[in-house]
Amino acid sequence: MNLAWHRVDLSLRHLFRISRSAVATTPTVQVTFSHDGITGHGEASPSKRYGQSPESVESALAKLDLAAALADPYRLEDLDAYLIETIPAEPAARAAVEMAVTDWIGRSLGQPQWRLWGLDPGRAPVTSFTIAIDSPDAMAERVREADAYAVLKIKLGGPDDRGVIEAIRRVTDKPIRVDANEGWSREQAVREIEWLAGQGVEFVEQPLPAGDLDGTRWVHERSALPLYADENAGTSADLPALVGAFDGINIKLMKCGGLREALRMTHTARALGLKLMIGCMIESSVAITAAAQLTPLLDHADLDGNLLVTNDPYRGVTLDATGRLVLPTTPGLGVYPLAHHQPL
Amino acid sequence: MNLAWHRVDLSLRHLFRISRSAVATTPTVQVTFSHDGITGHGEASPSKRYGQSPESVESALAKLDLAAALADPYRLEDLDAYLIETIPAEPAARAAVEMAVTDWIGRSLGQPQWRLWGLDPGRAPVTSFTIAIDSPDAMAERVREADAYAVLKIKLGGPDDRGVIEAIRRVTDKPIRVDANEGWSREQAVREIEWLAGQGVEFVEQPLPAGDLDGTRWVHERSALPLYADENAGTSADLPALVGAFDGINIKLMKCGGLREALRMTHTARALGLKLMIGCMIESSVAITAAAQLTPLLDHADLDGNLLVTNDPYRGVTLDATGRLVLPTTPGLGVYPLAHHQPL
Repeated sequence: MNLAWHRVDLSLRHLFRISRSAVATTPTVQVTFSHDGITGHGEASPSKRYGQSPESVESALAKLDLAAALADPYRLEDLDAYLIETIPAEPAARAAVEMAVTDWIGRSLGQPQWRLWGLDPGRAPVTSFTIAIDSPDAMAERVREADAYAVLKIKLGGPDDRGVIEAIRRVTDKPIRVDANEGWSREQAVREIEWLAGQGVEFVEQPLPAGDLDGTRWVHERSALPLYADENAGTSADLPALVGAFDGINIKLMKCGGLREALRMTHTARALGLKLMIGCMIESSVAITAAAQLTPLLDHADLDGNLLVTNDPYRGVTLDATGRLVLPTTPGLGVYPLAHHQPL
Repeated sequence: MNLAWHRVDLSLRHLFRISRSAVATTPTVQVTFSHDGITGHGEASPSKRYGQSPESVESALAKLDLAAALADPYRLEDLDAYLIETIPAEPAARAAVEMAVTDWIGRSLGQPQWRLWGLDPGRAPVTSFTIAIDSPDAMAERVREADAYAVLKIKLGGPDDRGVIEAIRRVTDKPIRVDANEGWSREQAVREIEWLAGQGVEFVEQPLPAGDLDGTRWVHERSALPLYADENAGTSADLPALVGAFDGINIKLMKCGGLREALRMTHTARALGLKLMIGCMIESSVAITAAAQLTPLLDHADLDGNLLVTNDPYRGVTLDATGRLVLPTTPGLGVYPLAHHQPL
């Protein structure tokens, strides 16, 4: 069993600003798992918010000895336990390894991942397309460019949130989802959400800092819109506490550590009566396609990380004319490297 | 796609009495799913406690049109939704159909189910062996016959519970699990559990009627032993309410409606901090082996239904010398009909 990796810096089409930061490129670590003549692909997109970097990912990967840990590559439950024990603070690295081994298994069985999970690819939802924080005029221009997407996700928490929404509403009446990325105070959240409810907004993601779950409960009681947890919903163990504070959760592979935990979160959230979406970081088609495999089980998708970059080295999931995710029919995750990039 | 079934009455080695009833035979409905030259096996063991009978199972099965409902046998998520919509009150029939299709998929992929779930069969636990209610002397005699099993499950809720445990303790010091099958009142439960805690009992299953969850909470605060939910733990949606009343749950395929829901319950219970066991009805090796496939993920198993009968028409999971479940290495569920029974 051979694990290999290399860094790929993804270049963003436009400067990407959220309430915390702004970036022009995003570092990723592309991972391959090879065994018995088959190669599976995975990807880590480390998050500063969670204390990770490409260096911390590469250092975590260097600690692993899969051949010693796994009697059989199919033993994903043992793999998960080994990764959590060995590199607990590196969920993006863990997600990348599990993704590559999962891809390997699907390829070795000759079946797409969605089929192995018992899913109907026709149930994959549309993906929202993210408009990062900018001036109202620049954001409205981004919305015009996003003609192909049926639902928009607007990053708020900037200096002129209402101006942004008004500028966007002048150019489109598409459904909007709003992501505050922990950027509001309690009173501000209630006030902004009340105003947003009159603007064709579907739901609001993570209005308050994750540390203020009591405050989120307070906001939830007064909220005219459903609230979705992002930073508050790391893994399945976080979910029971969210009942009464949020209406749904946003799963991300780079937060929860992989597809298997994403499935655990899905089952747990359903039992708790929470709605489900899956989101992403800035990622290539590898991690986006991995996340897309799960979407027939979910209510919403926000899988546009690969659409925001200009140098995606892979192809995988695509979109149809209505912005719906089209899952690959090829084995495993269904991703392949583009020919003009270095062979993987 | 062809679904077929026939009734098999399983004969019990000994009269089987629990707090509610006593039986000498148990009716089951054996199901097969055939498609593309491959046949998968499933089984329903209907429960009177939940208003089912072999007739209600057969009538439910006759309502199904799998070829119309399923574009592809792999679409287990669609199958689940179809079964819940079409035969909602027949979880045993639903479990049987899903089991047969799951077996079919594993056979078509040439892989054992545990491997498709990413599990290590070496993590399968010992199974407990059930001693049904009888006179203390007769129960002690059953314990002597159960020499091959490492853990005993004792059905209580009869007229002389303490006499039973004392008689058993005279012949063995094996770990004991106690199942009250809803047979106690609140005060009685606290009193009996306190006494049982001094008798080498590991945990107590379902002390109070399922309808008295508040009472179970009250008992739980005063309980010297962990409490496991059986009748209170039907499906994953039941589990959030059990926190603070129980320490663990007993999954049964015939209650929850199938392997997929059993996996949902597993993930949900883990997120809620509940321990996990999987149990059974009186069943042949088909349903017992199906349940056994999941045990590497669980804390305990009580999968002895097939060991209590004299005319099991199948073989599947076996036990090693220590009473541990040995999962089949053959594709699918790994069950096969015995030659001297009618061909399936």
